[in-house]
Amino acid sequence: MKDSRREPSGEKLAPKAVVNRVCLYLRQLEVFQRQGESTVSSSRLGASLGINDAQVRKDLAFFGQFGYPGIGYRIEGLIGKLRHVLGIDRDWPIALIGLGNLGRALLKYKHFRRRGFQIVALFDIDPHKIGQMYDGLPVRAIGELAEVAASRTINLAVLSVPADVAQSVADQIVACGIPGILNFAPTTLAVPSSVSVVAVDLSVQLEHLAYKVLNTQSAFPDPAHLFDGASGR
Amino acid sequence: MKDSRREPSGEKLAPKAVVNRVCLYLRQLEVFQRQGESTVSSSRLGASLGINDAQVRKDLAFFGQFGYPGIGYRIEGLIGKLRHVLGIDRDWPIALIGLGNLGRALLKYKHFRRRGFQIVALFDIDPHKIGQMYDGLPVRAIGELAEVAASRTINLAVLSVPADVAQSVADQIVACGIPGILNFAPTTLAVPSSVSVVAVDLSVQLEHLAYKVLNTQSAFPDPAHLFDGASGR
Repeated sequence: MKDSRREPSGEKLAPKAVVNRVCLYLRQLEVFQRQGESTVSSSRLGASLGINDAQVRKDLAFFGQFGYPGIGYRIEGLIGKLRHVLGIDRDWPIALIGLGNLGRALLKYKHFRRRGFQIVALFDIDPHKIGQMYDGLPVRAIGELAEVAASRTINLAVLSVPADVAQSVADQIVACGIPGILNFAPTTLAVPSSVSVVAVDLSVQLEHLAYKVLNTQSAFPDPAHLFDGASGR
Repeated sequence: MKDSRREPSGEKLAPKAVVNRVCLYLRQLEVFQRQGESTVSSSRLGASLGINDAQVRKDLAFFGQFGYPGIGYRIEGLIGKLRHVLGIDRDWPIALIGLGNLGRALLKYKHFRRRGFQIVALFDIDPHKIGQMYDGLPVRAIGELAEVAASRTINLAVLSVPADVAQSVADQIVACGIPGILNFAPTTLAVPSSVSVVAVDLSVQLEHLAYKVLNTQSAFPDPAHLFDGASGR
């Protein structure tokens, strides 16, 4: 059931920040392509994303030599190569586990499907949810995960269950042989090293934003009012 | 209206990865505290999160000297200090802009409120949404943002609008003097350096997961089946 894996290359996994930026480069290259362009320089690609050109070249060099001297990057070719590198040149059937508010919003999130990611099966641990239909799909008991994952070649699970049950559901995902979990539960999952987890912890993101706002030097013309009562709250 | 800022320290902003891990340490310390513990070692704190003890000490040292030789960290004191460092020792009234599926799920996301982040005003650019009530709050026209932000001392905006309007809405957020944006729109925003943005790009996270799954050395007992058809899809 893990037929969408390819043979590990033995090369080092690119750091998270590099992969995330490369995803942004790909999306921006597709914008340029829709605008009818055929080549782009690293400085122009970077400028459109607020990233400097040396960083762009370094990030892309992690995956191969894509640039042409005096030309820059050929947009169509680079899009194809990056889609292959990132693994989005194929379909990824997904199991969504947890049909609360966030899970239902993720089910309707149209940008997943555009990238080949399609939620094909729904699961919940709440008996009241099991059997309900969302977007034409029935909610199944988690006990059916192994069978459905095998028959639909599901390699990714989106986990949007409460924190206190997330680990036990993750254990079941792992037991079913699903090698990738996108974890929205606000807790850290313990999984074997063969299983990949990407955590999307919304509270952590908001805390990070608060930290940045508090510690960013203001460029406002009159900074005096920024600090009123700052230490007294 | 920016009274929850404090004077910039002139110190370097901690890297995103450090801040994100410190948010996880804080949450885990709170778990230990609820379990009645008073001290914890860096190795135990790290082990609970799959992070090694040297990394824990290095991350925390970014913000101060918190450890006691032979004791480790005093949990209650460290929680208070980290909450102060991260800026979650205060209230953060938030404007939510964009009441689509994702926006409505974010409005109901209870983990924000537990951290002092409270959505106090809703905005949309869709005339059909304006005037509707969600969770007891009316959806306002974006033109009212400046007035509401000032009267409610709003310093953070959660942006969950479609990509094609995100920049123009971000421009209005900036014009209102709001210094922080949590951006869920799948596009890169251009803002002045005085404005902080944290992007939560769900498609990028899923692409990153696909990359990791494809490139992680499998520990499965029989790896042969993992690669069936890998290159042909």
